[in-house]
Amino acid sequence: MHAYRTHTCGALRAGHTGQTVRLSGWIHRKRDHGGLVFVDLRDHYGLTQLVLAPGTPGFDLVERLRAESVIRVDGEVVARSTETVNPNLATGEVEIRVARVDVLSEAAELPLPVFGEPDYPEELRLKHRYLDLRRETLHRNIVLRSRVIHSIRNRMIDQGFLEYQTPILTASSPEGARDFLVPSRMHPNKFYALPQAPQQFKQLLMVSGFDRYFQIAPCFRDEDLRADRSLEFYQLDVEMSFVTQDDVFAAIEPVMHGVFEEFSGGKAVTPYPFPRIPYRDSMAKYGSDKPDLRNPLVMQDVSEHFRGGGFGVFARMLESPKSAIWAIPAPGGGSRAFCDKLNSWAQSEGQPGLGYIFWREGEEGGAGPIAKNIGVERTDAIRDQLGLKVGDAAFFVGGDPKSFTKFAGSARTKVGTDLNLVDEDRFEFAWIVDFPLFEMNEESKHVDFSHNPFSMPQGELEALMTKDPLDILAFQYDIVCNGYELCSGAVRNHRPDVMLKAFEIAGYGPEVVEEQFGGMLNAFRHGAPPHGGLAPGIDRIVMLLAGQTAIREVIAFPLNQQGQDLLMNAPSEVEDKQLKELHIRLAPQIKL
Amino acid sequence: MHAYRTHTCGALRAGHTGQTVRLSGWIHRKRDHGGLVFVDLRDHYGLTQLVLAPGTPGFDLVERLRAESVIRVDGEVVARSTETVNPNLATGEVEIRVARVDVLSEAAELPLPVFGEPDYPEELRLKHRYLDLRRETLHRNIVLRSRVIHSIRNRMIDQGFLEYQTPILTASSPEGARDFLVPSRMHPNKFYALPQAPQQFKQLLMVSGFDRYFQIAPCFRDEDLRADRSLEFYQLDVEMSFVTQDDVFAAIEPVMHGVFEEFSGGKAVTPYPFPRIPYRDSMAKYGSDKPDLRNPLVMQDVSEHFRGGGFGVFARMLESPKSAIWAIPAPGGGSRAFCDKLNSWAQSEGQPGLGYIFWREGEEGGAGPIAKNIGVERTDAIRDQLGLKVGDAAFFVGGDPKSFTKFAGSARTKVGTDLNLVDEDRFEFAWIVDFPLFEMNEESKHVDFSHNPFSMPQGELEALMTKDPLDILAFQYDIVCNGYELCSGAVRNHRPDVMLKAFEIAGYGPEVVEEQFGGMLNAFRHGAPPHGGLAPGIDRIVMLLAGQTAIREVIAFPLNQQGQDLLMNAPSEVEDKQLKELHIRLAPQIKL
Repeated sequence: MHAYRTHTCGALRAGHTGQTVRLSGWIHRKRDHGGLVFVDLRDHYGLTQLVLAPGTPGFDLVERLRAESVIRVDGEVVARSTETVNPNLATGEVEIRVARVDVLSEAAELPLPVFGEPDYPEELRLKHRYLDLRRETLHRNIVLRSRVIHSIRNRMIDQGFLEYQTPILTASSPEGARDFLVPSRMHPNKFYALPQAPQQFKQLLMVSGFDRYFQIAPCFRDEDLRADRSLEFYQLDVEMSFVTQDDVFAAIEPVMHGVFEEFSGGKAVTPYPFPRIPYRDSMAKYGSDKPDLRNPLVMQDVSEHFRGGGFGVFARMLESPKSAIWAIPAPGGGSRAFCDKLNSWAQSEGQPGLGYIFWREGEEGGAGPIAKNIGVERTDAIRDQLGLKVGDAAFFVGGDPKSFTKFAGSARTKVGTDLNLVDEDRFEFAWIVDFPLFEMNEESKHVDFSHNPFSMPQGELEALMTKDPLDILAFQYDIVCNGYELCSGAVRNHRPDVMLKAFEIAGYGPEVVEEQFGGMLNAFRHGAPPHGGLAPGIDRIVMLLAGQTAIREVIAFPLNQQGQDLLMNAPSEVEDKQLKELHIRLAPQIKL
Repeated sequence: MHAYRTHTCGALRAGHTGQTVRLSGWIHRKRDHGGLVFVDLRDHYGLTQLVLAPGTPGFDLVERLRAESVIRVDGEVVARSTETVNPNLATGEVEIRVARVDVLSEAAELPLPVFGEPDYPEELRLKHRYLDLRRETLHRNIVLRSRVIHSIRNRMIDQGFLEYQTPILTASSPEGARDFLVPSRMHPNKFYALPQAPQQFKQLLMVSGFDRYFQIAPCFRDEDLRADRSLEFYQLDVEMSFVTQDDVFAAIEPVMHGVFEEFSGGKAVTPYPFPRIPYRDSMAKYGSDKPDLRNPLVMQDVSEHFRGGGFGVFARMLESPKSAIWAIPAPGGGSRAFCDKLNSWAQSEGQPGLGYIFWREGEEGGAGPIAKNIGVERTDAIRDQLGLKVGDAAFFVGGDPKSFTKFAGSARTKVGTDLNLVDEDRFEFAWIVDFPLFEMNEESKHVDFSHNPFSMPQGELEALMTKDPLDILAFQYDIVCNGYELCSGAVRNHRPDVMLKAFEIAGYGPEVVEEQFGGMLNAFRHGAPPHGGLAPGIDRIVMLLAGQTAIREVIAFPLNQQGQDLLMNAPSEVEDKQLKELHIRLAPQIKL
């Protein structure tokens, strides 16, 4: 017989009745009942019920042992009586009549219970992660993560991609966030950086003639932490040669759709091709470049109905050509109570208020102060444009859209959520496309890259030479899902002349570009294919599929929000000898 | 028609004749012939021959373009005449009669040619890795690496393993090599370390109840570089719960065998179960704990034939109980010329010489000075013990085996190689087992761990309490293949009491163990399963399968031997602002 087990704790069925078996696992739960001791024995694969009668060798031992001790038992598989069968347990038709017990590892008092998964402070959970990870939900999340990544890998390979590893000890990458640095022992006073993303390497792989690259790539950003961000994270890094934007979309859509269908637990997933929403439309319709499309509300510009009308605030606003009035429809929100609630919410968000009209039975035109001011005809026109009816409402935001778009987006979310319009049982995907290449830096009043400087401008060199920079769009795109940005990507600028011109517009001379991106620019000068790619965030995908809102719930050993590993004690002090070898000294700490 | 290609450069066959196609790729080679220009157009997938007639739009352009420029061509697929078919090329039955050429990227003068792969200094190859990677051999190695890793992953998953990621920003690991450190911005004067291996994390995963873990894990060691070592490397990290050593072997043998069979290019691979060679036998038979078993030579102890015999040097040596005489058989080495050559080689290795006997036709007993001194009877007995015959030789090393074993192993390799006994067309695997848990540190004269302190001693606590520490074996094992150590592993010590005792024998008090391994020890105190694993080196596996001897030939973007990335310029100087944020200063450099 095997030293530890003939079966796992998830394997036994009625068909095994009568067999002598050996199981090993953790004591999940222990109950005394009618003089017998019942134990749920747990391992990675499941639970099996053990029964010990008084006098069984090991009976006293098991009575004494704490939960989470590891034992090995020999015994006979016995069918449970019909009334004690547990249909919620795969092994619920049987139990083990134990003949012998051996202790493999005795558990000391637990700082954190496993059974029942009661709420516990995160610090304690992380310090004793080996216990936390035994809890059913977290254990399942980590297994899900593994399965999702494997599925993504296979789907990428089925699409003709190959995985290549890029360096982790490398140079600063120009992703814009703060680098982690690694002092070099062999090269005094010099430093490696951990990659914020393998951006340049994946482009170099294309220039090196590898046609379709992917990597489940570890990335590192030394930034302050949030629930959906960690210092190290994984992305599905992708790059393709000889492609247009449409080719990138066509390659990745089946992967994203497929993996979400596989693990969504029955939730509907947007069929592909995914909708493509130009950035400017997304801002105008949803007030966000990562709209939650489970929320059916679409904002509309209703300026014309207010121009020169009786609602003075809006009418005066519209005298400025930059201004507009947007409406957020609220089907089913047609009551003063709801409208007042939203108005209060807006005030709590620092707004002067949220104008509204609502329509109720038996009242010609709409209700509320705005309706009274602009009159029936304009109110009806607004209702018709928005496709609303009696029982509905509309909210209005006005001014320069630049200043109110974000708030309008929040109001749309608030209205949709409060009216229960958001369908939780869906994963709604879309591409956001046509991002502007440049934006005005409001502080410096200079034109700057709005995202990644490596994107190809639509219209290439000609656009850069002839158009207003702020009107130039890039072949740059995001995938959004349920209000999260899952990835961004671009068709790259593979032409040194176009690149230098783009940087010039953003205020960087050729010497700066050569110094910072010389390696890549040089590569582009020796035969570069047109190429493009993207990089969906793995942790965020798993977080969505696991129904979690914190990234730490889908990472086996995450750092805490202060960037500490409480279990292994990192970061920690190091020895002087180590610092000496690395040619660095500690800076004195300034007491505040 | 697609913007860049209807087919890849490896796709067209005779069946495509007559079709109008579009291809994009690099100008691999260009030849003028009979007024026509022939171009081999290359991409990741293959080569296709283009033909341009004078007058074709783009003819002059192509004449002017340098090799490695990227072009797009439209043209017609034409069958080649029988005598110009190239059977070595997948597309060799056809060529493209080009109607139009567009330049996608013009190549400047090349610092490194791609076509023909002439030898070039490594520094230049690494600085222009994007060109080097286009060369056929290196390109193929990197693709092989990708395929091997994917195959390993699938085989592991087929064996019931799941891949889990462990942290890269973590604490110092006790692997014994030097850590890379990462200064923490949020925690002044503290440092993360990059993992030398996920040793503690994989054990914690087992304690967390994950039954079968693997990971293609990046590992980091700040050590001086060799041809088969790099600062960052990948290992197939594996751990299993509720297993004995035999279970680990049974799980990993099909994976290693399978992946080598799949990619060996027809070379024979040891069938499994692989031979298991106790460490002490390996040292005695092969003079090494990583024997090349393609070399059939097995050394033997022949002390008895020299004891009290006429060869004074050996007879006197054997008066010490520590001493022995070992023989290296040399079938086919039976000539004075060969024996003299080996003797000279031994002297060049710093040895006084290498004693020998050889057997030739018509001479009773053996030839050479030793044979003359010990006489026919003893010479015959040696020949019989070694199974040799006329035409063969035997070489002898004597003294304390501790001092000569390594040299004896080199001599075995030298004899086997020089006599062409090594079968190059094989991958010969074996397990080396039963490593001693402790060894005598010859400097400090104290007992120390010989390898990993986390291995379970054979005999557990009882052995530690009762045996001479130097006689205690560990459940520790290596896989060797063709003279390389591919991995080491162990059944772990999961019992805090056994662990503390083992550390005590090695001279570490409980307070040291608690301080250094407190996290893991604490985990073991809350229910730990018996577990074990191993960690084959991925780079080395790929290196063997690619038939390479330098690890940099199987890594896309390796650091050079000085730990520099010459393409991306790493390590490099950083800004003062960055150092300040990280609370460190540069130590002044000492001029030597």
